[in-house]
Amino acid sequence: MAVVPTLTSEQIKASMEAALDEARAAGQRGEVPIGAVIVKDGKIIASAGNRREEDQKTDAHAEMHAILEANAKLGTWRLEETALFVTLEPCLMCAGAILNARIPLVYFGAQDKKAGAVTSLYSVFADDRLNHQVKVVPGVLQAESSALLKSFFQELRAKQKARKKALKLEKNREQDEKAE
Amino acid sequence: MAVVPTLTSEQIKASMEAALDEARAAGQRGEVPIGAVIVKDGKIIASAGNRREEDQKTDAHAEMHAILEANAKLGTWRLEETALFVTLEPCLMCAGAILNARIPLVYFGAQDKKAGAVTSLYSVFADDRLNHQVKVVPGVLQAESSALLKSFFQELRAKQKARKKALKLEKNREQDEKAE
Repeated sequence: MAVVPTLTSEQIKASMEAALDEARAAGQRGEVPIGAVIVKDGKIIASAGNRREEDQKTDAHAEMHAILEANAKLGTWRLEETALFVTLEPCLMCAGAILNARIPLVYFGAQDKKAGAVTSLYSVFADDRLNHQVKVVPGVLQAESSALLKSFFQELRAKQKARKKALKLEKNREQDEKAE
Repeated sequence: MAVVPTLTSEQIKASMEAALDEARAAGQRGEVPIGAVIVKDGKIIASAGNRREEDQKTDAHAEMHAILEANAKLGTWRLEETALFVTLEPCLMCAGAILNARIPLVYFGAQDKKAGAVTSLYSVFADDRLNHQVKVVPGVLQAESSALLKSFFQELRAKQKARKKALKLEKNREQDEKAE
């Protein structure tokens, strides 16, 4: 069993706050606001936000980018003795990458009832058939993470509604012009 | 439900042969010999072999590299209307990436009893709680894929045995010298 790092409650709060900052920055770029950081020896060694629309890459989730940044920094695909913080429960791809990287400890904010692979749809971190298990702490700064996602999708729906209304008005105007 | 591409038996065989070529090339670079290709309109648009040791990146599995290459070629994270061929059953990370990319069809060679997420440990492509399902065809050129992996690990074990033997001989020699 891998060594699970010990973090103080201050370190835990500061790390998830940093992940939330990444999530907010992602939201400002027009991405679904999700952020992640990786911590080693109590210090943040990698941080990233969701970049899927900007990058148009399937793997551009916050966790994957943070993992790749930590790989580059430590010079290895193995991220033992680190902890990953993410504002939303990881999907299958990211949970699989966390397992492959041998990360021993994951903190997450909001649950993802539709695609979460850690506590919602699957519990892949607790699967003792796999060669690695991950200690998971859900619900860290959950309210902030959820609120960020909720307001992003509310705004998106409002924008879509406004766009549809504008298109309808434009169509009506064209029909009026034709009828004249 | 996504449109599942139709491939001729010749196209299927040629695509898996190309994935096997990638696997062999990976083996020659000292990597676990696994290869993958992605096909669109009957043509290979991306191909990659495992590069985990060389890159020291957690995501450097053959499927992930092929997906990223196809993303770049098509300019989108969505790989609808493509088929992915891989010599070994995908792990959770790669199966999750295939789901996230909306790939509708996957052919694979050998089963991975220890980490396979498609037929062995999980059946994530058939999970109707997720927003995408994948048609899967296992066992394509399975014998070739398995033989490649088997001979790689046999050779690795033989090398390790030889290394251990050499170390033991060296230790005995040192002890003999001390005793003289």
